[in-house]
Amino acid sequence: MAEQKNSAKQALQGLGKKLVADIEKGKNPSIDVTVRTLSNVSFDKKTKKLLLGEKTATREFFNVGHIKKFVQTLEAAKISKSLLDEGKHASLRDVYYQGLRTIPNTKIDLWEDQSESDNAIEDLELITDCSRERLNVNANKMGSVAGKVVIEDKGDTIDWSRMGSGGWSIPSNVEEIDIKKVSAKYVIYMEKAAVWERLHEDKFWDKHDCIIISSQGQTTRGIRRLLQRLHTEHKLPVYILTDFDPYGIYIYSVIKFGSISLAHMSETLAIPEVRFLGMSGDDATNYDLKRYFIKLKDVDISRLKQMSEYDWFKNSKEWQRQFRMMKQFNAKFEIQALTSKGLSFISERYLPEKIRKQEFID
Amino acid sequence: MAEQKNSAKQALQGLGKKLVADIEKGKNPSIDVTVRTLSNVSFDKKTKKLLLGEKTATREFFNVGHIKKFVQTLEAAKISKSLLDEGKHASLRDVYYQGLRTIPNTKIDLWEDQSESDNAIEDLELITDCSRERLNVNANKMGSVAGKVVIEDKGDTIDWSRMGSGGWSIPSNVEEIDIKKVSAKYVIYMEKAAVWERLHEDKFWDKHDCIIISSQGQTTRGIRRLLQRLHTEHKLPVYILTDFDPYGIYIYSVIKFGSISLAHMSETLAIPEVRFLGMSGDDATNYDLKRYFIKLKDVDISRLKQMSEYDWFKNSKEWQRQFRMMKQFNAKFEIQALTSKGLSFISERYLPEKIRKQEFID
Repeated sequence: MAEQKNSAKQALQGLGKKLVADIEKGKNPSIDVTVRTLSNVSFDKKTKKLLLGEKTATREFFNVGHIKKFVQTLEAAKISKSLLDEGKHASLRDVYYQGLRTIPNTKIDLWEDQSESDNAIEDLELITDCSRERLNVNANKMGSVAGKVVIEDKGDTIDWSRMGSGGWSIPSNVEEIDIKKVSAKYVIYMEKAAVWERLHEDKFWDKHDCIIISSQGQTTRGIRRLLQRLHTEHKLPVYILTDFDPYGIYIYSVIKFGSISLAHMSETLAIPEVRFLGMSGDDATNYDLKRYFIKLKDVDISRLKQMSEYDWFKNSKEWQRQFRMMKQFNAKFEIQALTSKGLSFISERYLPEKIRKQEFID
Repeated sequence: MAEQKNSAKQALQGLGKKLVADIEKGKNPSIDVTVRTLSNVSFDKKTKKLLLGEKTATREFFNVGHIKKFVQTLEAAKISKSLLDEGKHASLRDVYYQGLRTIPNTKIDLWEDQSESDNAIEDLELITDCSRERLNVNANKMGSVAGKVVIEDKGDTIDWSRMGSGGWSIPSNVEEIDIKKVSAKYVIYMEKAAVWERLHEDKFWDKHDCIIISSQGQTTRGIRRLLQRLHTEHKLPVYILTDFDPYGIYIYSVIKFGSISLAHMSETLAIPEVRFLGMSGDDATNYDLKRYFIKLKDVDISRLKQMSEYDWFKNSKEWQRQFRMMKQFNAKFEIQALTSKGLSFISERYLPEKIRKQEFID
């Protein structure tokens, strides 16, 4: 981990040295940044990840069109460097406030709003090839985990199987966690905290030797990195459990392939091997859930159409079949619909059955 | 705790026995429920809590206007009873699905949507005088805690000071947690998870012998109960730290006085002794934060007006002064504005100074 830190610092120093060299040579100081627009994002069929292309743009200091972004990038680099020096972490909002000021003798603020400082940090990720987390800038914190895993973090030894009813609270940044001991066969990541509490109360992770992780809604970057580390460092399969609705499938899509806005981070964040465990359209029939259908809204229908056209779903027969089912049903349904069969139906029958039969969608 | 469980079960059995007695006497079976509308909610100046009045309504079985709610209440009671019998907990959404069915020979669903099952559970809280949590129905899970506290929960001993960077993840239901050992002088509850991570990284709780708790946005019932238990069982003062905006002050208001929709739960949930630590309007001047003002939106202005007319704020000179300041500024500002003074300014100067000077608003 200490090694990683150095490389982030080194990358920032490299940027600084390059600019100093430009100045000493009497050149216009410039930074090359990979273009992060949709036109430069593509789905790589080999790695099965959304990746950024090769297109770069050069940002120059002596250029009225470039100067603002140039200064913003340097400000972000300065903030990150001092975070690394002090061994502290800041949130994106903190970075915004740390850099916010009016440029002397002008009425121009260094950034108009947080989207500009966020952008500067994302550019910096590309320039340094270090994730935001390695630059000591954190995303939001959310989510809980339980399972037979022992980690070390900040000098504490933490046993995820001894956390009472609450579980361990996942930090925004999991880069420096040492995963010491894993006695689990797979990971289930679920969209809903209430489902996590159900499985936890039923001791599902204990009975089935697995790890259960949830956030609430959107998957945070901390959780995506945690899933990836468990998967790559400990060879654990990762299964995704969401509602059968466009939003749930999108959660799966982002974890598996990456997202357009974070395409430059796919390498670190995407996990092409994750498998979709449920809820699937077939579950509606197999588990008799049609009674619990919820009519699709307009926003669901347009989201569904959009998703079915994604490169990575377009050629998947199985996903196209699922999308067609949702359209035919004109309905979505929730994981908790299983509750109608009994509160623990999900832990006693649904999950063990689906996993035994390997009823996954990839 | 086991004692509590019995009393919830006993209360549910009491309801059943009362109805059986009605039937055996040939009477129209009926349930008395305290009215939960605004007209029956008032601010009790003595206890400083929002409390329900005495108005009750009688719900009869043989009454076309009452029958649906009558049956819904009984269904909720049935679900809660079986949860208590099985020793399991359900979310509000689970309760909805567990009861959802079409009444035979009709086209009427037991409940139209979750608001009806939520209502039935709230009525049941009043009828049994047991909180939803004691009826084994859980709210949403959210939030983290750190500090020198040892608890026992589900057979695990958990030391909140040994939880690495994540902290302990607060469950939706804290009724059965045993707080074994507390070595802290006060509790700070903060609105924002990012601020919690700041204080945690700075070891604020260690240096100042306190407990830090956050959710993200709205305070969950689990957190409100945890705060209350730490306050009443361990005599810890509780300080609230939010943005200086109407939403932040509302968070404080709900924790301190209770909320209108949960007025029947004020006894268990409200903590009239909590103190508002910041951000206050004065902080803008004292810490030179005017640069970071964010203009009030229309929704802020109407929320501000509404709040300044609350019974419990109406006669508070200090709060009226704060409201006036916000109006004069025509601006709100965030805790993270302190970051502009240095990332750890909040832990090294702002909080110690405010607490030392006892600059609280009550």
